[in-house]
Amino acid sequence: MSKLKNDTLIRALLRQPTEYTPVWLMRQAGRYLPEYNATRARAGSFLGLAKNPNFAAEVTLQPLARFRLDAAIVFSDILTIPDAMGLGLGFAEGEGPRFERPLREEREIRALTVPDPGQSLRYVLDAVSQSRKALADSVPLIGFSGSPFTLACYMVEGRGGTDFRTIKTMLYQRPELLHHILETNCRAVIAYLNAQIEAGAQAIMIFDTWGGTLGTAEYREFSLEYMRRILEELKREHDGVRVPNILFTKGGGGWLEAIAASGCDAVGVDWTLDLAAARARVGNRVAIQGNLDPMALLAGPETARKGVAATLASFGPGNGHVFNLGHGISQFTSPESVSALVDAVHELSPAYH
Amino acid sequence: MSKLKNDTLIRALLRQPTEYTPVWLMRQAGRYLPEYNATRARAGSFLGLAKNPNFAAEVTLQPLARFRLDAAIVFSDILTIPDAMGLGLGFAEGEGPRFERPLREEREIRALTVPDPGQSLRYVLDAVSQSRKALADSVPLIGFSGSPFTLACYMVEGRGGTDFRTIKTMLYQRPELLHHILETNCRAVIAYLNAQIEAGAQAIMIFDTWGGTLGTAEYREFSLEYMRRILEELKREHDGVRVPNILFTKGGGGWLEAIAASGCDAVGVDWTLDLAAARARVGNRVAIQGNLDPMALLAGPETARKGVAATLASFGPGNGHVFNLGHGISQFTSPESVSALVDAVHELSPAYH
Repeated sequence: MSKLKNDTLIRALLRQPTEYTPVWLMRQAGRYLPEYNATRARAGSFLGLAKNPNFAAEVTLQPLARFRLDAAIVFSDILTIPDAMGLGLGFAEGEGPRFERPLREEREIRALTVPDPGQSLRYVLDAVSQSRKALADSVPLIGFSGSPFTLACYMVEGRGGTDFRTIKTMLYQRPELLHHILETNCRAVIAYLNAQIEAGAQAIMIFDTWGGTLGTAEYREFSLEYMRRILEELKREHDGVRVPNILFTKGGGGWLEAIAASGCDAVGVDWTLDLAAARARVGNRVAIQGNLDPMALLAGPETARKGVAATLASFGPGNGHVFNLGHGISQFTSPESVSALVDAVHELSPAYH
Repeated sequence: MSKLKNDTLIRALLRQPTEYTPVWLMRQAGRYLPEYNATRARAGSFLGLAKNPNFAAEVTLQPLARFRLDAAIVFSDILTIPDAMGLGLGFAEGEGPRFERPLREEREIRALTVPDPGQSLRYVLDAVSQSRKALADSVPLIGFSGSPFTLACYMVEGRGGTDFRTIKTMLYQRPELLHHILETNCRAVIAYLNAQIEAGAQAIMIFDTWGGTLGTAEYREFSLEYMRRILEELKREHDGVRVPNILFTKGGGGWLEAIAASGCDAVGVDWTLDLAAARARVGNRVAIQGNLDPMALLAGPETARKGVAATLASFGPGNGHVFNLGHGISQFTSPESVSALVDAVHELSPAYH
């Protein structure tokens, strides 16, 4: 049984009554926090930080010490799986992640194997169990993975944020080859997330950062279908306690109904959606997580507070809302704005419950 | 009166009966064409090409010589207006456009003036009139502009495709300052587009490339409202002939109903939307332009043809569809794929009319 002192997040994800709207922030352990940068400096590099469970657990806890957050999310990278597959993850200074050996040759694609999380991803599981222990049942710990399609984007392109022409050419020209990658990623994500649950993750989030770059039919076939299969195989309980999950496709607002029908407990939505309209579309099928524009925090505490008020009002009265940003927090955010946001959620949301 | 030999595009934009679905492609005069690259080399640079009406008219006509397209679009850059405002447009090799003097100081913002299109944008009007003359009433010539918000993104950020944190900080912190820029841009776009119509443009398109990065309320206030005002002031007729317009917000699929109610004749949609669903949402209010994924063309002529069949089937029988890509054509496209696309539209679409 859960001994969580604060299980508000878990209840909200399951659309059970809560006294207020729980809040956590995507990328809440990150570069906007001076203490995070200090730990990263001690670790020597981003990967040195992410691959050392002691450091990872330390930064996982940092935002909880500052803000009244209702959840922690294990500090890790979205690309641990393809790194464990041998693609050679690296970070160029001032740029996003890159793979040294992008996956393009059919021979290499056919040779892809599912990493054993207990082996090559042990460091993530250790970060989960150490973070869980350090949290001492104060708030739930969220585990996560990139979606099979999002991982494939990085694997094939070598990096994110491109026009995705390499993977899209593969999608249109050799769909069976891309399906082979996605099948492999799907099995890897299932094993990885279930191992995180075994290690202590109390909720799970799947980040589909690039699914929104697909057409509607392609999104269903190459991204959503694999997430649906993950959800089918994901442990729904651990030690007799429900482990809820959240599915987030950035730019996937047009497909909300289909996402809500995938078997997930909650749908993450980006800041381009109006929560009232999103809620009307998904009805009572799922909880909704989101969706303040992370850039609103750059304008200072007062704007953050106004943004919270507008977001809560847009969702309206009732259960099933988890407050979050519509995307990861910007490194240029001041901690004062985050304080204002978190406090405003706690102060203004009880009126809606 | 129009003496157009082929006015299929104009009729489709006005939802009048046509014998087939007209087709043109965003960025159809571009780097995927060897003859474009040859002219650009002669011009010395992109700006040398765009600012010389002879060269601009030459490349405007090039795709028409190769493909059975139903429209030409004047070759120009989206950033001519802020360049004429004195921000100093430049192109770094291998990167997108940049302004030497991004607009961030209040004093500079207040000093912004509306350029007289007859003066500092004369070269665009000359490109329009020369292109129109060279087309000899074969197919209509489309004139265009960036939207006030999209222009402001480049003006404030100095470039596109960022996280837009500078302009968004302004939006949330000093909305009146951003409104001042948008007001100025709005008046500039009205003067610019009406001058293009006077010079011979027979249809008008407004490109809102970055409006889709806004939240719903912010999109309405900072992007759509200014486009609505442009449409109010835009000449609807020239020489007794209707000049239809198209409004395209990339990533704006969630706001289709609001866009359709803006006063536009047609809505451009990107490849993430399903045309059947889009059509059901806008009803008979506007025509729809789009929306094949430009990356589908990279997979070759056969995939291009399949994509055309799927796109036409998705829109279904009836008038009011203009075939296009969901975004500008990629420079890595082979002209053979474009041929296959254009021929397939002409061959397969009559069955829907």
